[in-house]
Amino acid sequence: MAVYTDVSFEELEAALAGYDVGAPLSFKGIAEGVENSNFYLQTDRGAYFLTLYEKRMKEEDLPFFLGLMEHLALNGIACPRPVRRADGGQWTRINGRPAALVTFLNGLSLRRPEVAHCAAAGDALARLHEAGRSFGLQRRNALGPSGWGELVEKTVEGADGIEAGLRDLIAESYRDLMAGWPGGLPEGVIHADLFPDNVLFMHAEVSGLIDFYFACNDALAYDLAVLMNAWCFEGDGGFNVTKSKALLAAYQARRRLTAEEIAALPVLAAGSALRFLLTRLYDRINHDPNALVRPKDPRDFSRRLRFHRKVRNASEYGL
Amino acid sequence: MAVYTDVSFEELEAALAGYDVGAPLSFKGIAEGVENSNFYLQTDRGAYFLTLYEKRMKEEDLPFFLGLMEHLALNGIACPRPVRRADGGQWTRINGRPAALVTFLNGLSLRRPEVAHCAAAGDALARLHEAGRSFGLQRRNALGPSGWGELVEKTVEGADGIEAGLRDLIAESYRDLMAGWPGGLPEGVIHADLFPDNVLFMHAEVSGLIDFYFACNDALAYDLAVLMNAWCFEGDGGFNVTKSKALLAAYQARRRLTAEEIAALPVLAAGSALRFLLTRLYDRINHDPNALVRPKDPRDFSRRLRFHRKVRNASEYGL
Repeated sequence: MAVYTDVSFEELEAALAGYDVGAPLSFKGIAEGVENSNFYLQTDRGAYFLTLYEKRMKEEDLPFFLGLMEHLALNGIACPRPVRRADGGQWTRINGRPAALVTFLNGLSLRRPEVAHCAAAGDALARLHEAGRSFGLQRRNALGPSGWGELVEKTVEGADGIEAGLRDLIAESYRDLMAGWPGGLPEGVIHADLFPDNVLFMHAEVSGLIDFYFACNDALAYDLAVLMNAWCFEGDGGFNVTKSKALLAAYQARRRLTAEEIAALPVLAAGSALRFLLTRLYDRINHDPNALVRPKDPRDFSRRLRFHRKVRNASEYGL
Repeated sequence: MAVYTDVSFEELEAALAGYDVGAPLSFKGIAEGVENSNFYLQTDRGAYFLTLYEKRMKEEDLPFFLGLMEHLALNGIACPRPVRRADGGQWTRINGRPAALVTFLNGLSLRRPEVAHCAAAGDALARLHEAGRSFGLQRRNALGPSGWGELVEKTVEGADGIEAGLRDLIAESYRDLMAGWPGGLPEGVIHADLFPDNVLFMHAEVSGLIDFYFACNDALAYDLAVLMNAWCFEGDGGFNVTKSKALLAAYQARRRLTAEEIAALPVLAAGSALRFLLTRLYDRINHDPNALVRPKDPRDFSRRLRFHRKVRNASEYGL
């Protein structure tokens, strides 16, 4: 939710000279996105979104992210389409940062999605998984189980300062999840962060999926577990099985889960809750007071983690 | 440069029910404005700007600010036009905050204005002063000389920590300015903050003046002194007399300065430099590390203040 690197009109004009998108009419920094600097750009030809990638983004990941968005957009997914430079390049450089121009999507993200929206999100994720099959590049999930150990080490000291008992919860969950993590599930390109912020709606239909900067190759059912965590818990922390049932049914109407995936769902859901707990905890503990974003509350995900650790069977999710 | 108060889709829909502006297509927090929360809103009828007024804004000032923008827009000034609610009200309430919807203006603000832009800004200020004559409401300048004493008291201790010698510069300037502040100059509605950020350009012409939240009644030539400080100094701190000459000539082509105004210009310019020095210093000293804005450098204005204190005659500004 910030603009870390400013872009002057003069810098914008110089960058746009490499593109065939018309003349700028309006250009505003957008209070959106935690990692990068984002701008809304209106030209006499259309509306665009300009992203300057900040330090945490590795430039070598851009071909995957931008290539994926291009591939998905060409395969019927409503997502931002990267605009190539006149010379064919996928990105440019502004103020020393790699920067990409993508098409701007209309639609609004929901704070309190209802059951029908959860179903729409489930359907959208299944479409995304289908369309991603034919994408050629690969990126490993840096925030999958192999990345958790480092995050556990870096957060273990500060955990109980955020919530009593959190240190034990994390240690036990990490141990159990690493021991019981399912292998051999169907894999593909996953979004890995499809929270309501990242789904735009118009007239109750999904008009866009955004923010592909955690996308990677991993178990498809893990992405579904992320989606459940992101969409099916109420503000008070309670699990809404009606939403979960609708979400899972809509997903399965496009891609039926295997018996192994269904059996693995509670573990995947606990793992996804641990992943967001760990990163939020890390961001909270290491919060730079000069940062332009307020860190999110890790406790939303300790509650979810405790919930999933008690689930014995995917039927508790409404399956 | 921030969104302090979040607005959900649901809260937006509820607020828009009171307006006749169509259905929302897109809604984004804008990284713009230091005091308030700003959002870009696209509906099926047009583009708007939604502002939620935060704590530092007094609600009793809104009739002046919104009434002024409405008056100016009706009198040919390219500025945001407040959209009245269906029941005629000038503002609404979202998340406990007063909030106003205004029309969105195309155009881009310049980081490094050139001579022709300075002339355009001078012309735009003179038009603003003309159009403001017939506006009925009054608001005193809270950041004029009568407000400096309190700011001096609150910043005096911290001044030398920001720049060696700043404490003395402020004390001496304050004393001299209060002793020699000119009275009886032509007054009217002034913008009081017409920095390049607040002037939108399209094809080298002014397409909009924005951010009227420091507007008040005061000496018109003081507003011109603010404009000179804002537009005629280079990044290295040097005064560009070519820019100043062009700016003043364009202003005078619409409203000729009186002999008293010309004589007062160096004092008004020093006063305006002191005003921005004091508020920036205050914001720097009292910077809340949780704030979403980085405080601006007060030293830009200690340099300007020192410059103007050495000016003996308005001819040094190119008059």
